[in-house]
Amino acid sequence: MLPESLQHLIDQFKRLPGIGGKSAQRLAFHILRTPREEAERLCDAIRQVKDRVTYCTICSNITDVDPCPICADESRDRRSICVVEEPQNVNVVEKTGGFRGTYHVLMGAISPLAGVGPDDLKIKGLLARIGAGGVEEIILATNPTVEGEATAIYLARLLKPLGVRVTRIAMGIPVGSDLEYADDLTMTRALEGRREL
Amino acid sequence: MLPESLQHLIDQFKRLPGIGGKSAQRLAFHILRTPREEAERLCDAIRQVKDRVTYCTICSNITDVDPCPICADESRDRRSICVVEEPQNVNVVEKTGGFRGTYHVLMGAISPLAGVGPDDLKIKGLLARIGAGGVEEIILATNPTVEGEATAIYLARLLKPLGVRVTRIAMGIPVGSDLEYADDLTMTRALEGRREL
Repeated sequence: MLPESLQHLIDQFKRLPGIGGKSAQRLAFHILRTPREEAERLCDAIRQVKDRVTYCTICSNITDVDPCPICADESRDRRSICVVEEPQNVNVVEKTGGFRGTYHVLMGAISPLAGVGPDDLKIKGLLARIGAGGVEEIILATNPTVEGEATAIYLARLLKPLGVRVTRIAMGIPVGSDLEYADDLTMTRALEGRREL
Repeated sequence: MLPESLQHLIDQFKRLPGIGGKSAQRLAFHILRTPREEAERLCDAIRQVKDRVTYCTICSNITDVDPCPICADESRDRRSICVVEEPQNVNVVEKTGGFRGTYHVLMGAISPLAGVGPDDLKIKGLLARIGAGGVEEIILATNPTVEGEATAIYLARLLKPLGVRVTRIAMGIPVGSDLEYADDLTMTRALEGRREL
């Protein structure tokens, strides 16, 4: 028999992804013990994300300012666009430090099962960018999943006739892992993608 | 390069117990996608816990009303008090449905290493309740840890001279588990606590 307000907070935490009953209870009790200012900081941070984060009108990435810092950065190479499914994927590529082009976020992947078709993705904006000229290469960095592959194949067919080079990121054995743990499909892709040394 | 407000929210989530970098990012992106009303509901729930939850002046349990519903319940048996370390422990005992007495929450356990002594626990209130008369049994349901045991032993010495029966919950093999996985100490306690069939 927990206090009603605490039970309500546990229920709210349970709605978050990856938070089960036990975690929700631990979080709620943490909020209970935490100083009020600390709890307020969390609420303010949540509210600010809802207030400030918007989508870049050029690449559809999430941003506090429009256009986003990457699209606004004059030093980025506008000849190549890396296409990803979700905003968080941009960060994964950026962290490598090896890509100086720009991005385009699709906001999903084609998934007939989930009822997501090409029209639900930010493909129109990508076509407009290519149409405006100056784009030489589209790097398809959608996930190596059924949906990501389907999206990559769809985009390749759509974009190649426009005269741009369309490439797909490599699939293969992750660096630092062991062949022993590679599944058949990954191993197949690793063989297919082999390069001359 | 995430939007500043989103990075700030990730940092705030990371401060919560059991939330690492990846979880914090997933939670922040969830807040980003979630409707505003849903995010507001979470904030309201956090604020209400800070506003409403207080401690019962009788048993020190957390509550929205003082005294707490258990202490206020005339049908509970005031002759036995179950002593636990934390408010969430009350729930564990309540869920069994087998205890009709009342509780006393110590708000911690004796732990010299963490600098928690008997004076930091809600022992005075417990002594006052016993002093007021009518209490026949104190069930020590502190955790079966070094700190919980030390607290139980301390309380037993303190309370027995007051003429109340002082008992300790049983330690042993958890129901449904396998002897194979029992540690030495648990097995020792299970043997010590054996009962005639």
